[in-house]
Amino acid sequence: MAASQKCLGKGSPAPGPVPKDHIRLYSMRFCPFAQRTRLVLNAKGIKHDIVNINLKNKPDWFLEKNPLGLVPTLETPSGQVIYESPITCEYLDEVYPEKKLLPSDPFERAQQKMLLELFSKVTPYFYKIPVGQSKGEDVSSLEAELKEKFAQFNETLVNKKTKFFGGDSITMIDYMMWPWFERMEMIDLKHCLDDTPRLKKWTEHMLEDPTVKATMFSTDTYKVFYKSYMEGNPNYDYGL
Amino acid sequence: MAASQKCLGKGSPAPGPVPKDHIRLYSMRFCPFAQRTRLVLNAKGIKHDIVNINLKNKPDWFLEKNPLGLVPTLETPSGQVIYESPITCEYLDEVYPEKKLLPSDPFERAQQKMLLELFSKVTPYFYKIPVGQSKGEDVSSLEAELKEKFAQFNETLVNKKTKFFGGDSITMIDYMMWPWFERMEMIDLKHCLDDTPRLKKWTEHMLEDPTVKATMFSTDTYKVFYKSYMEGNPNYDYGL
Repeated sequence: MAASQKCLGKGSPAPGPVPKDHIRLYSMRFCPFAQRTRLVLNAKGIKHDIVNINLKNKPDWFLEKNPLGLVPTLETPSGQVIYESPITCEYLDEVYPEKKLLPSDPFERAQQKMLLELFSKVTPYFYKIPVGQSKGEDVSSLEAELKEKFAQFNETLVNKKTKFFGGDSITMIDYMMWPWFERMEMIDLKHCLDDTPRLKKWTEHMLEDPTVKATMFSTDTYKVFYKSYMEGNPNYDYGL
Repeated sequence: MAASQKCLGKGSPAPGPVPKDHIRLYSMRFCPFAQRTRLVLNAKGIKHDIVNINLKNKPDWFLEKNPLGLVPTLETPSGQVIYESPITCEYLDEVYPEKKLLPSDPFERAQQKMLLELFSKVTPYFYKIPVGQSKGEDVSSLEAELKEKFAQFNETLVNKKTKFFGGDSITMIDYMMWPWFERMEMIDLKHCLDDTPRLKKWTEHMLEDPTVKATMFSTDTYKVFYKSYMEGNPNYDYGL
């Protein structure tokens, strides 16, 4: 970890080079996409440091490394830069062979990618519903759509008869989906799991995982950050 | 190849089981996403048959295999089903080790995936521009945006100093991007390449590739199909 977790914004000095036996993650503490990469780094025990970025006011040196200015972004000691959360996670799993998170069978790997693609249609609801709520709109139809999507994931678990999406132990797809479920209580959406008991049970199993425990924030913390975010003035350093 | 390339619609009898040493592709002859998979099947010399689907009137047996009803969809002799074009292509590259299309180096693989992600922001213009044109709208700003995106890909080739996006021979990323360039003349967008000479040159190199030649249609054929598609009555079997 870097000396300070405080985010770096425009005008801040660039961090030093990435130490030889490390990999660096440019992140934002409350970003669910960057959390995917944090989960993989932690689960695989990869030596890394984290540089948090002020996403409202990005440093020039960060935009030079990644002109898209996205987190998560990985940087290697030789200056290679990798971004887009699923790409960073797959890269880490390929480069660090210890505790493989993706299955070795090509069809099982394809299944995880298809599930991830399906899940990419779920994440927008975690934005649309609270935004609708904040405007006093009726979000019941959005919640019904979300529940329908959850039913597909519930069915996957029912058919597989396993605790997790890739079997009875955690694999990549579980970590790719987890960050949004961690935030459900924060945006008062936990009742959307009431009709999908296997998926609800999955969230309980996930909460027992040491890596999930090590990377998560409390609902109270999320609530404070999220309020500041919705007000257009995100408190990236809340709690430090 | 199946006995006939004619598309199968609702009520048509289901094709027989996938032969043991084959893989089956459910496709639509003019679909650029399915063409990605056709390119990979051809380039790697994989034994396969193709079943074309009437996408306006899908057979029930197809929806049972893939409830999303998407092409491309792959089916193996044991009944495994794989969809989403990049997932099908990566699966084929993993299962059939002859003539690997993805680089073996994890960072180079990540680079190809990042380029593909960037390219996913390009493909919508190939829909938005002709639709705008057909409504008599001014599409010059959309064309300017497309040219800006092309400039990024041109710069990649300039920086790499290579003929193709993964080096001096064709690799996966080239095939993933190609189908849309093949359709540029059909929708009168070729002038959008005028300011990006390296990218234009890339299209010329691609046209020399035997696999590209084997899977492509003429601009005249595309024009007939596209007209029928825009009129809401796609002629999937045109030219058969």
